[in-house]
Amino acid sequence: MKEGKHFNSSDFKAWPSRYRANFFNSLSGFKSINLLATANAKGQLNLAPFFSVQHIGANPPLLSLIFRPETVERHSLSNFRSQGKASLNAVHSDIASRAHQTAAKYPEGVSEFEAVGLHPEKGDFEIPFVAEAHLSMGIEWVSEYKIQANNTLFVVASICEVHIRKPEAILEDGLIEHSLLESLAVNGLDTYYQPKPYKRFAYAEVDKALKEKAWTKD
Amino acid sequence: MKEGKHFNSSDFKAWPSRYRANFFNSLSGFKSINLLATANAKGQLNLAPFFSVQHIGANPPLLSLIFRPETVERHSLSNFRSQGKASLNAVHSDIASRAHQTAAKYPEGVSEFEAVGLHPEKGDFEIPFVAEAHLSMGIEWVSEYKIQANNTLFVVASICEVHIRKPEAILEDGLIEHSLLESLAVNGLDTYYQPKPYKRFAYAEVDKALKEKAWTKD
Repeated sequence: MKEGKHFNSSDFKAWPSRYRANFFNSLSGFKSINLLATANAKGQLNLAPFFSVQHIGANPPLLSLIFRPETVERHSLSNFRSQGKASLNAVHSDIASRAHQTAAKYPEGVSEFEAVGLHPEKGDFEIPFVAEAHLSMGIEWVSEYKIQANNTLFVVASICEVHIRKPEAILEDGLIEHSLLESLAVNGLDTYYQPKPYKRFAYAEVDKALKEKAWTKD
Repeated sequence: MKEGKHFNSSDFKAWPSRYRANFFNSLSGFKSINLLATANAKGQLNLAPFFSVQHIGANPPLLSLIFRPETVERHSLSNFRSQGKASLNAVHSDIASRAHQTAAKYPEGVSEFEAVGLHPEKGDFEIPFVAEAHLSMGIEWVSEYKIQANNTLFVVASICEVHIRKPEAILEDGLIEHSLLESLAVNGLDTYYQPKPYKRFAYAEVDKALKEKAWTKD
């Protein structure tokens, strides 16, 4: 085996839990960071960071989120499940510290919006968007799957509405160029990155050399 | 509603399918990019890019991958499901174009390793790693869940082994600092980014001001 360090299950088990959490949370690479806004039956708002929002399909438009096991009360999960609607808001560099702070364990009844200094903006959708976000969407609960291996929940949602504050970030072919929205990427539990455009490739075909694509058509 | 552009389901349906695919594949933000290596019963190797590898748990160490609907034969899926083992290999800038090219529809019997110029490296694990990768892991099939809303498959795997070619990328607290491995992030279907370190935050607590953490302890 080539140079470097090799680890196996015996190593994983011997590590202190915090070390193991950092290692495996960062192992699979960069993730997106979005704020999930929900409301309970009384209309009290909740806001929490999610690193696990993932594309599931474009037609119909679907995404997924992972929720940790229900061993403690999870306001975001119970609100979203019972009310059926939520908003997702991309985190950009100017709101990163406020977004991260929403992870603190505020008691029920305290809105993370107020606690951290972000603002709910009510439009036609049932759940407010984060006013400071550059990209927000309204989503609807579709289904949940319990991952038997560790009791985490995999939740599928459909995308009802999308609001993009800087429409110039939508390229001619429909790609949302997230660096134009200053969207961040996250690694592990607490480490934020600014992704810089590198390369765009054409569709890969057998027996054709791979070509780079222009970032935009002009 | 604030300035910007607003889209709803009627807009989504009216878009050309390629535009819609680009839009929704990029909507939720940055993703990781890994190469999944598998082998069929004859030992023939397959290599394919995955943007959907996600952290599921640290103890036991679990991750997930999304597979598209089984409407055509998917060699990676059938190999991984039948043989029970695979390797995942993080994509860095020097191998990005070769990694992207593995997505071309090579016929069964053609190894994407040979076709694109990457090399299988056999160690103790049943499936070879990509020799050129800076981070590789051996994974084992745990379970699959069919997402009823669009027939995609959510597959859970356990992490058996990890090889890191540049051990200096593992920080003192266990975080794998992916920019030291030149790992890329991807947006949409074809757009690659180099994430640059921005900020690391301390654990968020109620009634305490959020602090930035040093990237490393020294």
